[in-house]
Formats: sequence, structure tokens, C-alpha cells
Amino acid sequence: MSQATSKDALVSLFEGHQTFAISSHLRPDGDAIGSMLGLGLILEGLGKTVRYLHQDGVPENLAFLEKESVNPIGRAGELDDCEAEVFVALDTANRERLGEDVLALIPKDAVQVTIDHHITNECYGDHVWVDAESPATAQMVWELAKSAGWELPASARVALYVGASTDTGSFQYANTTARTHEMVADLLKAGLDVAEVNRMTYQNFPCRRVELLRLLLETLERSEDGRLAWWSLTMAMKQEVGYRPGDSEGLVDVMRGIDEVVACVFFEEISDGTIRVSTRSKTTEVNVSELCGLFGGGGHILAAGARLDGPIEEAREKVVTALKEAASR
Amino acid sequence: MSQATSKDALVSLFEGHQTFAISSHLRPDGDAIGSMLGLGLILEGLGKTVRYLHQDGVPENLAFLEKESVNPIGRAGELDDCEAEVFVALDTANRERLGEDVLALIPKDAVQVTIDHHITNECYGDHVWVDAESPATAQMVWELAKSAGWELPASARVALYVGASTDTGSFQYANTTARTHEMVADLLKAGLDVAEVNRMTYQNFPCRRVELLRLLLETLERSEDGRLAWWSLTMAMKQEVGYRPGDSEGLVDVMRGIDEVVACVFFEEISDGTIRVSTRSKTTEVNVSELCGLFGGGGHILAAGARLDGPIEEAREKVVTALKEAASR
Repeated sequence: MSQATSKDALVSLFEGHQTFAISSHLRPDGDAIGSMLGLGLILEGLGKTVRYLHQDGVPENLAFLEKESVNPIGRAGELDDCEAEVFVALDTANRERLGEDVLALIPKDAVQVTIDHHITNECYGDHVWVDAESPATAQMVWELAKSAGWELPASARVALYVGASTDTGSFQYANTTARTHEMVADLLKAGLDVAEVNRMTYQNFPCRRVELLRLLLETLERSEDGRLAWWSLTMAMKQEVGYRPGDSEGLVDVMRGIDEVVACVFFEEISDGTIRVSTRSKTTEVNVSELCGLFGGGGHILAAGARLDGPIEEAREKVVTALKEAASR
Repeated sequence: MSQATSKDALVSLFEGHQTFAISSHLRPDGDAIGSMLGLGLILEGLGKTVRYLHQDGVPENLAFLEKESVNPIGRAGELDDCEAEVFVALDTANRERLGEDVLALIPKDAVQVTIDHHITNECYGDHVWVDAESPATAQMVWELAKSAGWELPASARVALYVGASTDTGSFQYANTTARTHEMVADLLKAGLDVAEVNRMTYQNFPCRRVELLRLLLETLERSEDGRLAWWSLTMAMKQEVGYRPGDSEGLVDVMRGIDEVVACVFFEEISDGTIRVSTRSKTTEVNVSELCGLFGGGGHILAAGARLDGPIEEAREKVVTALKEAASR
């Protein structure tokens, strides 16, 4: 039976056990990996035994975080078993988002703890701490450590910083709180190398990503009134730059950064010939979740996606026509 | 005769006078305008009379800050006189960087105050407060207000945030301190709308800036080992996109974002035919302040600039050759 848990109760629970398994959500981002390693490294510092397991493993752009850890993050599908008294799911709104290989590895007798900042959290597990006001699960882990008086090893400081920084867009999003900055002030006072961690997080892109940006800018189109923008990535362009998954992550911000642009679309040709459509809107007046719904997709009002049949010219024609109509309402 | 001044002495000086003129450096950036308006709006809140004057006026990308102010920032060349008991130069390393029209307007009898965070400050004026540890002059203005117990009007909070955010690359650069985050925590607690200020600062670019980025990417070059990168902006390119001052601000981060790149250079042809050179380094091992010193320029170890004679091909040849030597040491 799930129950809402206080920070203090979690502190007692963690201090009262010796072996832990920690996981997070599919397609992990900076907060997923950052909160996992942040909590785990703190517990290791307290002399606990910690195992990290993940359905997908660590993506290339976050591999530098894993290097800080003594125990690597195991890909759940490659592990035979996972002994632990306590299983902690971090930053993961529901059980399914852990992935089936992780679910299969959770020890039957383990106490199951959920720590998350998603308002949509389904409150699964034996002890649940959800704080939807917190911009990042990493910040909740820091709150836990501060309230317990646990020491933060240098490697945990890096992991927690990356979690908070990436989930707040380098402290720019509306979710950023005064407490987030108090956390970072605390991490910096303890000796965090702010230039190095940001360099690894944001200045560590392969050169082919810049080449990709150049090619995408050549395909940039805008509506007559300038309020809509879109660009396209074909398989030929991917081959030209040696594209790998993740290379285009965040590039849509270049279109979104244009003052007049209210909504923008990224068309991407996939190897199976279908077209992945990613949309972003700056205003609730242009609901891109509804737009993507027209094509069997969905998402949030300001960020949504869909998958259409190719060729890319036809998909683009359909989506841009629908977007123009949505934006003219 | 210049003298180093304490914060407390400046507080007394400001409280003891009624009329102020405030200025900052040529080609103003976020910290120049942010610290000017931050200090001015605080003084206005204390019932003082404040005039803002600037050689170049406010660039388009920072115009939203000026809207927060009751008294607009006058272009010094368009003003006949400027009465004030106290003249404050903010964020400006030497007198010349104020511009000749500003210098001509400084009232003869005014007490002249310098507040700056540049280590290269030449300590001009009657009272000088230089803090090279501070990442932004805006942060120094905040320190001054906090130590004096002065209230920060909402508009001053926005201006000081923009100064600190832009001079630290959204809190990512090595100069960012725990105190910077404490300042932002204080501003957020007081009600700063973090999403809105960041949208105005970082998602409010004219479309021609994206066009400019496309053209710059076409000129991108790298050294054989990939550790150095540079691109070039000619007058012809400026005419093609309808370039205005400020349009290229921050674009250098695209080069800096490449993992292998250790140092990068932005070559810009100015209307008088000279070449403005802006350099960035990721490591103290490549000291770009020294590099720019070779050409009569200067700055910080990781960010510096110089001005060379044209044509741009020759300036590029000279600087890239020197940079290759500096980077091979």
C-alpha cells in the first residue's frame, strides 16, 4: 500500500538499511541520471552498498556523469539479479516508465520508494515523496541530504547540479525557484567547479551537430506573417553529417528564439521512411497537442509530436496547412 | 585624485547627494545596461533624480529593459547638457570606453564614481570600487543595495538579473559564484518572473539573427587538430541580413559548444574597415587576453578582444597564426 512519506521518514528509512538499488525513467535525461547518481553517491558515502540499474543505460551526452561513480549504471537487460533491501525509483511518474527489464529485477522483498517531482506521478511503491513544486528530482535529493545532514561527495554535487540545471534550462524556465539557486550556491560553496560541469553538459557537442545546424538552417521556412517556422531533416542530410540519435536535441531552440515565431515544427525523416514531427508553441493559444492529435500524435499544449507517412514533402504540406489554420483561429 | 572606496563609503556618498548621471561602456551588453538601470532605478526609488546617458544608446536586444525605466537612456550625442552632482561610470574599464560624447557631457563639478568588475580597470574618477572577483557589475550594484538596505524596485530586479545572467552565460561560466546564486535567490524571492525575463533575454531575437548564424556557419573554419575554430562577418554579410548592433551577441557559443574546440575567434569587419576580433577560450592554458595583447587589445584570460586593421583576410591570418602558436605551447 502506497503512502505519502515525509523527508524525515525517508531519512530514517535510508539510514536504517544497508543495500540499495536505484533506477529512473526510460530515455533518461540529465535529471534522471543526475538524481540517480546524486542519491547513490551520497548513500555510498554513508557506507551503503548501492546498485544502479537502468532500462536504457546512460546516453552518450551524460556519460561523463557515470565516470564519477564507482559502480557503473548497469543496463537492466544485461543483469541477472539485483539484491537490495530498498529499491528507489527516481524522477519516474509511473511504474511502466521504469521499463520492463528494471521491473523484472526489483527484488520481491525490497521496500519500494518513489521520489519524484512530476505532478502526474501515480504514487506507486511503499513510500512516496512527490513534490511537484520542485523543478528537479535532483533538487529533492539535495533537500533530503541537507535535512539529514548527510555529506555530499564531490561527484554527487556534480550529478545534482546537472539534474537541476538541465531540468530548468540552465535556470531559465518558469519552474526555477529561489531554492534552486540556494542549492547551487551551496554546491558552489562546497567546491563545485561550475565551468567544468557546464562545459561537460553544454559545450560538449560533436562537431557534426554544428554541421547539422547549418544544413537545417538552409531548410528553414516561415509563414508569410512570420509567426510559424519549420525546418526539415532528411535521411540524405543525416548521412552527410554522420547523424547519431541525440544530435539534434535542443536545436529547435534556434527557431523558438525568433521573436515573431509563435510555433515551430521540426520534420525528421526516419530510416523506416516515416516522418517524425516535433512541434513547439510559445503560447497556449496555439495548442500543438491538439494539432498533433489530428495526426495520431499528442503531448503537451506547448510541446507535442506525431508520426506521419512519408514522403517528407507531403507530411510537411499536411502539418503546415493544419498549423496555419490552428494559428489563425 | 582617484581613491579606492568601500561599499559603505559609496552608500554615504549616494545617500548624501540628490542628482545623478549614470553611464557605461561603448557597445553596451546586458551587464552595461543592466547595471546602469539597476543602480538608477534603485536611486530613483530613493527619491533621487537620475539621468542615464550613453554613447551608443540601448541596443535593440536590450530595449525591453529600458521600457522598465521612467527616464529613458539618452544617446549622449543628442544631449545638450547633463546636470548632476554625481557621475557614475559602471562596468567600464577606462575613461575612453565611455565614448567621447559622454566624456564631453560629464559636469565639471560632479563627483566621479567608478564601479566595475574588470580586473583591467584603470581606476579613474574620484571614488573607485573595483571587484574583479564579481562576475558582473550588476552583482556589485546588488551588493551595494543590500549592504545599504535600499529597496529594489521590480524593474531594478529585472535589470540586475539580466546583467548577472548575460555576463555569466546563464550562470555557466567560471566567474559564477555562490554569491551570484544567492543574489538570484534573493531576486526570485522578491517576485522576479524568471520565465518572462529569460524569454525577453534569450528567446526574443530578430529573424535576421538566425539568418546571420546561417551565414556565419558557412564561414566556419577549424584548425587541423580541431581544437581551434573561427568564423567571419564581413560588411557584405551585414548588408545582406540588415545587421544591427547586438545581433551577433552570444552566437560564439555555437563554436564554443563543439567538444574538441579549446578556443575560438569571431572576426567582424566594422564600417570603418577595421576588424574587431573577439576570442573565447575554454581553458586557462590558452590565455586569449595575452593573445589579444599582442594586437593592442586585452580582456580576461578566457574572453578577450582586439581591433586590427583590415582587410579581414590579413587580420584573420595574423590572429589565427598567433592563436595556433599559443595553443601549441
